[in-house]
Amino acid sequence: MSRPKLQDVAARAGVSVTTVSRVLNNRGYLSDDIKKRVDDAVAELGYRPNEIARSLIGQRSTLVGLIVPTVADPFFGELASHAEGALAERGYKMLLCDCHDTPEREEKYLDLLQGNRVDGIISSTHNRDVAGYGRADLPIVAIDRRLGDGIPTVHSDNRTGGVLATEHLIARGSRAPVHLTATDHPGNQRAAAYRERMAAHGLEARVMAYGYDTSLDERRAVIETWLTVNPCDGVFASDDLTALMALEWARKTGRRVPDDLRIVGYDGSAALQLAVPGLTTVRQPIERMARRAVDLLLERMADATADVAAQDPLPVALRHGWTS
Amino acid sequence: MSRPKLQDVAARAGVSVTTVSRVLNNRGYLSDDIKKRVDDAVAELGYRPNEIARSLIGQRSTLVGLIVPTVADPFFGELASHAEGALAERGYKMLLCDCHDTPEREEKYLDLLQGNRVDGIISSTHNRDVAGYGRADLPIVAIDRRLGDGIPTVHSDNRTGGVLATEHLIARGSRAPVHLTATDHPGNQRAAAYRERMAAHGLEARVMAYGYDTSLDERRAVIETWLTVNPCDGVFASDDLTALMALEWARKTGRRVPDDLRIVGYDGSAALQLAVPGLTTVRQPIERMARRAVDLLLERMADATADVAAQDPLPVALRHGWTS
Repeated sequence: MSRPKLQDVAARAGVSVTTVSRVLNNRGYLSDDIKKRVDDAVAELGYRPNEIARSLIGQRSTLVGLIVPTVADPFFGELASHAEGALAERGYKMLLCDCHDTPEREEKYLDLLQGNRVDGIISSTHNRDVAGYGRADLPIVAIDRRLGDGIPTVHSDNRTGGVLATEHLIARGSRAPVHLTATDHPGNQRAAAYRERMAAHGLEARVMAYGYDTSLDERRAVIETWLTVNPCDGVFASDDLTALMALEWARKTGRRVPDDLRIVGYDGSAALQLAVPGLTTVRQPIERMARRAVDLLLERMADATADVAAQDPLPVALRHGWTS
Repeated sequence: MSRPKLQDVAARAGVSVTTVSRVLNNRGYLSDDIKKRVDDAVAELGYRPNEIARSLIGQRSTLVGLIVPTVADPFFGELASHAEGALAERGYKMLLCDCHDTPEREEKYLDLLQGNRVDGIISSTHNRDVAGYGRADLPIVAIDRRLGDGIPTVHSDNRTGGVLATEHLIARGSRAPVHLTATDHPGNQRAAAYRERMAAHGLEARVMAYGYDTSLDERRAVIETWLTVNPCDGVFASDDLTALMALEWARKTGRRVPDDLRIVGYDGSAALQLAVPGLTTVRQPIERMARRAVDLLLERMADATADVAAQDPLPVALRHGWTS
């Protein structure tokens, strides 16, 4: 293992170690000639700066942590892919923290990320009882979740999404559409919009919350039981996987879609739109959400005291397929 | 920012800084009493060891890089989720390197990971022209890809998978099934098994390779064109997303599935099985593949000279749905 060292680069370039370090870290005045000599020596020797050591000197790790429920879900997979791409363009690496849908993991990851001195955290989970964020002393940006005062949130227009889905079902003739969601808390704008539009049409709102830390199999079981005992002619699901569970339940129980049951999902990830192009869904601008989260995080990292301007929600759109 | 320092822990525990460091790194002989005093001081002060500094001392970063085509694809999302989980259980963090399906990115990531002194790399991509792996001087494990001598590969039984899919299509009555795959190279066991079984039945094999660094939209366009000009009554697709593209093409062009066209996919990720439960597919044991890759990598990290035992391929199984 004869990896070239800083000293080797200095000797090759005919400058001091300190000068090499200044060139690599782009600090202080340096003539073009010096920069070129150091760059050439780096290239000739195949020298690779030890970024761990650099991060100690510079107090920066160039690491950002992304906390998500699980990238096995295509929505979060696509979000993680875009967040990683946007971070890589800016010279940051991304630690993936996959909570496997459990709040316990999220608490542990938050601790771990701080211990590793990441430069910032992007959190996109829906567990509501994780206390650590308030205590965290590093820049955090949330996606589609309110984590606390001073923590910016990136979200798309959940209220409009809820209006579009509900009004679409009603316009197509549904009189008893239900809403399936993970958690029915006061901040849930999609559920609020559903209730509001149902009331405006004089229809009875029924919201079924299957809970967040349930496996896909558990979720499917609880949804199928609930749909079986709660007669309905429409489903507005707060994510596409849940909508597809309703579609499969309809198939198994002999209900015709859309005649007997109209189904609208939410998210519109590329993989699921490709898998089931006929699914009506409210599409979130996943790449724009990921990029905005990265932009906001880098702003906060550059200036921790920067004002958190309220962000306009990003626009959503309904995509009409044969399921509704 | 009054983060407790090593010195504060030492003062609280009434021991030297060196002793605290030895306890934290579990080095040398230490009495239970000393260990307890340091542990208590750490807990009372809420001290969090700076792992970047620790990694410099210990020459370990506890970071592992995972290179994948993209986690926006549910198969790689599920694989990444399980790899991250298995690494977290062993105290490692995972840097996600999402290539967005381009070989250029893979080369860059390989460089970047080495510059960051990760302890190891797991690579699961299908680009075949990335030269960097042979030069890499750190432990690497490949998933479903041959990277070079001395680099262990984890794979499931691609040959049997190809046999199961092809024989199933023929048994169901298909006489002109085609095979859709990313790249048709000599090491492609699924394509080899397809050709072998077709020949055994006296049928003409036709393999269509759409290329690896194509976007989903490009892939869909090239597959639809190809299927339109190449009459067939069956499709064996080497991944589920491609199978679902064939399914959608059949719907758009008025072909009945399975009567006019029988379709078999490959992978069986949880999300797509949930999205399209009727899709016949060859299921790979995704979690077992991820866990075996992590196990092998940790073995190599512990002993770089360890013999790379040839690994038996992990078993696959055909799941029969209504598409075939």
